[in-house]
Amino acid sequence: MTERPVCVIAFSGGLDTSLCVVWLREEFGYDIVTATVDTGGFSADEIARIEARSRELGAIAHHTIDGTQELFDGWIRHIIAGNYRKGGVYPLSVGVERVVQARHLVEVARKHGAKAVCHGSTGAGNDQIRFDGVLRTLAPELRVHAPIRELGWGRAQEADYLASKGFEVDASTKRYSINAGLWGTTIGGGETKTSEGVVPDAVYPATRSIDDTPAAARELVIGFEGGIPVSLDGQRLAPIALLRALDDVAAEHGVGRGVHLGDTIIGIKGRVAFEAPAAQVILDAHRELEKLVLTKWQQFVKEQVAAFYGMFLHEGRYLDPALRDIEALFDSSQQRVTGDVRVRLHRGTATVLATSSPYSMLRASAGAYGEETGLWDGRDAEGFAKISAIQTMLAHRAGDDT
Amino acid sequence: MTERPVCVIAFSGGLDTSLCVVWLREEFGYDIVTATVDTGGFSADEIARIEARSRELGAIAHHTIDGTQELFDGWIRHIIAGNYRKGGVYPLSVGVERVVQARHLVEVARKHGAKAVCHGSTGAGNDQIRFDGVLRTLAPELRVHAPIRELGWGRAQEADYLASKGFEVDASTKRYSINAGLWGTTIGGGETKTSEGVVPDAVYPATRSIDDTPAAARELVIGFEGGIPVSLDGQRLAPIALLRALDDVAAEHGVGRGVHLGDTIIGIKGRVAFEAPAAQVILDAHRELEKLVLTKWQQFVKEQVAAFYGMFLHEGRYLDPALRDIEALFDSSQQRVTGDVRVRLHRGTATVLATSSPYSMLRASAGAYGEETGLWDGRDAEGFAKISAIQTMLAHRAGDDT
Amino acid sequence: MTERPVCVIAFSGGLDTSLCVVWLREEFGYDIVTATVDTGGFSADEIARIEARSRELGAIAHHTIDGTQELFDGWIRHIIAGNYRKGGVYPLSVGVERVVQARHLVEVARKHGAKAVCHGSTGAGNDQIRFDGVLRTLAPELRVHAPIRELGWGRAQEADYLASKGFEVDASTKRYSINAGLWGTTIGGGETKTSEGVVPDAVYPATRSIDDTPAAARELVIGFEGGIPVSLDGQRLAPIALLRALDDVAAEHGVGRGVHLGDTIIGIKGRVAFEAPAAQVILDAHRELEKLVLTKWQQFVKEQVAAFYGMFLHEGRYLDPALRDIEALFDSSQQRVTGDVRVRLHRGTATVLATSSPYSMLRASAGAYGEETGLWDGRDAEGFAKISAIQTMLAHRAGDDT
Amino acid sequence: MTERPVCVIAFSGGLDTSLCVVWLREEFGYDIVTATVDTGGFSADEIARIEARSRELGAIAHHTIDGTQELFDGWIRHIIAGNYRKGGVYPLSVGVERVVQARHLVEVARKHGAKAVCHGSTGAGNDQIRFDGVLRTLAPELRVHAPIRELGWGRAQEADYLASKGFEVDASTKRYSINAGLWGTTIGGGETKTSEGVVPDAVYPATRSIDDTPAAARELVIGFEGGIPVSLDGQRLAPIALLRALDDVAAEHGVGRGVHLGDTIIGIKGRVAFEAPAAQVILDAHRELEKLVLTKWQQFVKEQVAAFYGMFLHEGRYLDPALRDIEALFDSSQQRVTGDVRVRLHRGTATVLATSSPYSMLRASAGAYGEETGLWDGRDAEGFAKISAIQTMLAHRAGDDT
Repeated sequence: MTERPVCVIAFSGGLDTSLCVVWLREEFGYDIVTATVDTGGFSADEIARIEARSRELGAIAHHTIDGTQELFDGWIRHIIAGNYRKGGVYPLSVGVERVVQARHLVEVARKHGAKAVCHGSTGAGNDQIRFDGVLRTLAPELRVHAPIRELGWGRAQEADYLASKGFEVDASTKRYSINAGLWGTTIGGGETKTSEGVVPDAVYPATRSIDDTPAAARELVIGFEGGIPVSLDGQRLAPIALLRALDDVAAEHGVGRGVHLGDTIIGIKGRVAFEAPAAQVILDAHRELEKLVLTKWQQFVKEQVAAFYGMFLHEGRYLDPALRDIEALFDSSQQRVTGDVRVRLHRGTATVLATSSPYSMLRASAGAYGEETGLWDGRDAEGFAKISAIQTMLAHRAGDDT
Repeated sequence: MTERPVCVIAFSGGLDTSLCVVWLREEFGYDIVTATVDTGGFSADEIARIEARSRELGAIAHHTIDGTQELFDGWIRHIIAGNYRKGGVYPLSVGVERVVQARHLVEVARKHGAKAVCHGSTGAGNDQIRFDGVLRTLAPELRVHAPIRELGWGRAQEADYLASKGFEVDASTKRYSINAGLWGTTIGGGETKTSEGVVPDAVYPATRSIDDTPAAARELVIGFEGGIPVSLDGQRLAPIALLRALDDVAAEHGVGRGVHLGDTIIGIKGRVAFEAPAAQVILDAHRELEKLVLTKWQQFVKEQVAAFYGMFLHEGRYLDPALRDIEALFDSSQQRVTGDVRVRLHRGTATVLATSSPYSMLRASAGAYGEETGLWDGRDAEGFAKISAIQTMLAHRAGDDT
Repeated sequence: MTERPVCVIAFSGGLDTSLCVVWLREEFGYDIVTATVDTGGFSADEIARIEARSRELGAIAHHTIDGTQELFDGWIRHIIAGNYRKGGVYPLSVGVERVVQARHLVEVARKHGAKAVCHGSTGAGNDQIRFDGVLRTLAPELRVHAPIRELGWGRAQEADYLASKGFEVDASTKRYSINAGLWGTTIGGGETKTSEGVVPDAVYPATRSIDDTPAAARELVIGFEGGIPVSLDGQRLAPIALLRALDDVAAEHGVGRGVHLGDTIIGIKGRVAFEAPAAQVILDAHRELEKLVLTKWQQFVKEQVAAFYGMFLHEGRYLDPALRDIEALFDSSQQRVTGDVRVRLHRGTATVLATSSPYSMLRASAGAYGEETGLWDGRDAEGFAKISAIQTMLAHRAGDDT
Repeated sequence: MTERPVCVIAFSGGLDTSLCVVWLREEFGYDIVTATVDTGGFSADEIARIEARSRELGAIAHHTIDGTQELFDGWIRHIIAGNYRKGGVYPLSVGVERVVQARHLVEVARKHGAKAVCHGSTGAGNDQIRFDGVLRTLAPELRVHAPIRELGWGRAQEADYLASKGFEVDASTKRYSINAGLWGTTIGGGETKTSEGVVPDAVYPATRSIDDTPAAARELVIGFEGGIPVSLDGQRLAPIALLRALDDVAAEHGVGRGVHLGDTIIGIKGRVAFEAPAAQVILDAHRELEKLVLTKWQQFVKEQVAAFYGMFLHEGRYLDPALRDIEALFDSSQQRVTGDVRVRLHRGTATVLATSSPYSMLRASAGAYGEETGLWDGRDAEGFAKISAIQTMLAHRAGDDT
């Protein structure tokens, strides 16, 4: 008896990836291995249900992999270093999960000597580009299947096919599609399909609506070391534990909701609601701490390259070495981003109240005032002002006599 | 009798500029003309008091000039076009006022055939550089006096000098120094002197603290044409009237407070509290409308140059032709930034709920789905994904055999 | 008798586009109209030969269109304004021709009420993306055929097909494929296929090899107005006549050859030889004139956005409004780029010897020295130097006591 | 007897720094120590003459320090990594020397327990800002003297003062002031004072004029490792030896001359002639090698930040941590910039003929063609082209019905 080739499928237990399992086994003759990479959005119950579903669909093996640490170390910490929010609001909650998931898919494929890998993305969105990009880069020898994109079926048609092979599924369409993870949750569908739709308060799974938040504000202190959040109210926490704890408290105070309208990789506009309580607080706190310890030009240059970095992440270019170069700049810039940031959470707002750092440039200049002679005097300032004006003045003078 | 030379002084009626009037007349023999350029921060009472004070100090003439329209047309509309907030938070409320004030100072000086102009800036801050830069560029033939910078006196010493010349003044120091204008109010001093100080709610003159805001949210619709706000809840308003009306309603809901820590032109760090209710709402609304009508690359390129534009404004480089070049880019980009933005004000938050535009690119693509054939199919997407991955894949393959 | 649908083909008379004519008529039942847009690379003889070829292949009409003026006005002048050379060397000679050709293809199609358009690009290169992009944007209602890309045949197979339909063609492969135009000539194939191949002197059609150039140098003066070259040695010339005249003299002196290795739109590396004598001289002359009349920040900002502009042009994004925005910045910046540039051509080198302008900022500052008091004195400079050092000094001081 | 305070002077043996020695001793009562930091421009004879001059003027000690290695390791290698040429032509030959000189000045001052340091810069140029910036940052406790800037004397007045103290000097003014160093030589004065002046061939000290170069071209191969030139024609050389050897051969072939007109730190325009044979060849060779091994985005992002880096170097901001951040990006990007570059020197031209690298991305893609299936096919390309056009197409469609 000849051995059947193996295909490893990125599996969530839903209709789309269930179809992938059956379709690829029935139509292509693969032995199917499923893999679920948890990037912070699954409960233990959900994990158990996914594993059971995989067995039920006849996969020869299933792998559950915790990708949260890799997500933080490889990607989230750079988003923090870059103070990056797409379109000024969205912390790229979903985008970076795909690279971690795709990378582990390749690892599992190699363990099983697989000939193919598969993801359940459609042909309409961003994720197909992200998955394909990572898979083709890390494992060009593997065939990449994307049956949902290839078939272009509706949910009913998918369910019919599964039923014809003996698998009952729930083909009902949910109004919203939700993707939860360590760095935030996105909510698509419904009112987000047009720009005019007002997303109802009720769709946000974790954050409270402003009217339901506590009447009393909550202050907390976030400690950073080298640009990484390391403590909450003085208690040292590993980054993932810190994000989860901060998510809870910020969500209680209604912090972190948003709606973003942006450009998909395909080129059409797309709109998505999201909640990312910890991400929003961390990004604000980090940016304010940087203002205290970085020079003007450090901030300016970093902001320029961070715009590229965010675009690359969004568009799935994770493995272009250009990102490694930018990360090197980020790492260099973060060496002194150490200190405490006091934040007030209240009625949906997160306000940075104060910052402190052993590397404070504000304190360094204040110190100077206490000395007998300051850093400069009025005559210095006059010279500085005069010379600073020269180029503009010459630009106006040039051609005056023409 | 020989005519005395005239010096025109930018006059606010306070201790510093009062000293300028007396000092320059007594020590330099000038006839003094005072000029007050209102950039949106003076009440009629204050204007009257300033005029009286000028007479009392012996100025031969006083001019009150309304600079708000010029402030909006020349500068604020470009800040809006650039979605610019310094350090991610501060809408440059004060910076742009100086160029308008300095420009009018030159105009008044020319009317009076003056030999000199004067501003009351110290040698410690940003405004001296801004005033000097504009004055030297527009009127290099005029002598520029900055007595406060030159003398370096304390307030008591200034008051003593004035008293010695027969003028009684209030030399008491206020804990906070406040600068109000059309595009926002800044609050310096007190807790802002260190990064650790928490600015108390009570220092903000117009915005309500969150706990004092109405329990009911307020929704409003801001209409834009060519990037400029032109209507509020369907009522057409001139920009300045619109900003004032929006300021009132947003302040009532606690929107627009902030604290910014940034780099002064001199190079030291400085911290300032501010409230800019209308500015914050307009900037958010405009940015979200742009996402609907501009391409990805329009937004990306504009954001890059807006960072320069904001830096130049902050640093007083208003008249460098580089700003005219960037404004031309801004103007081009704003042609389709027309539409309505629905905003909810609630408990210190301003949330953009929805946007609409006759130039909506979201609607343009949605339309495509309704057609018999869409813009692309799954096979196209597969090709796109495959080719998009090529360069990164080659970068990984290169050197694999070394 | 029913009318046959019309397809308009971008036609060069070569094997590929000849195949397009016959293939689309025979296999799709189109009436064929051919169109040749001259972007500066065709002689009158070649034009005549192309027209004859079109008739011979059975096209129902042929259009010859002069696209040089549009090429200059729409694109080349912006490349000049941006001082753009891809990879520091290549003036985008070919890239911008495609948009002009595609635009005219659409115009011809509309004249004939055509249902389809066709270009002869392969699936390997840049031009397919450029043609498709412009055609789909300007005429989304037209079907776009690209038979060479679709069929993927070799030249022999193409010739066989044509022979089977009664058309004799020369299917021999030339070692080099040459594309000539107003802004330069590219030479592909042969040694350019690898990075190690040394392109022989003999492949360059117009420029002389250094050893064959005149022993005597040639000096000439190029006059610019608003960034556009308008005269040669004092003789006023329209831009296209000027470029042609300059091409002749610079080619005689061996100026303008180069080899560029770059990233194709597809993502693979590509290498191409080129000669662009006038382009190289104009770009150098223009850049040096700008240094005389633009401020530091005008140059800096323009260089940053020009990098985007060049990338967009190369990648065929001609019609993204982001380019219109950048062109507005360019136009603003060019207002004072007026003056004369003296250039020496000698032995393959083009050296800018001198520049002059009514808007010279160098002269504006030199004038200042002649005045009784200069723009600044040593004490001013001391103050400027001291204050300029403050931020860096504080950055070093901060944390010294930790 | 009380000890006299020590002042360490950056000493070149010329009129200006000789005045500094005598002036500071006579008028301020310092014991004078002189220090000469050789950044590649002094012969052994010149060094000996400088030492003798120092003794003659009465310095209590003199230090000669070789700064070439530090110049290369700390600065030149980053200019190479950034492919930086100011204004497209000038490799910053002089700018980076000052930081090395100033840093060693501080070291010598600390050795001698000095209270002050001194440089001989005028108040007109760039060097004063560069020296002051480094000195104040590294040694804020030291007083910085700049007597030439403070006194503002002409050369005759300086000579008179020295004569009055018993020192005979040559006060004649040379038409050109020449600054030679490892990374190039600058020539100021004479025709460079206006933009119209044509710099004569005779002023260039080392490079031959084109007519005097050998009739035969010279080819050579430069080897790079990690972005650093490490071999010439296969012979391994340390960077400084390599630069000197390459300078000799390139100068013989007339390569490396130029004239740059730029913006001084003060804000006026300045013009300078230069010759930098090795620098020009290395920069071209390095850039072409990068095209073979870096991705498009690596090159694009690096070029954007290199523009900042070059500006910072020119303006003496060497010690701003923003430069360390950019250098980290550079270092990351250079890891694969390894390979050989074949260059032809001929009649003032340096032409990169060919490149090769173990990390060649061109070879990586060429390999793909040899495989049974390529990286993509015509249908993939069609999908890629179609989807790439979507955003621009939507931008044109949007608003069509308004």
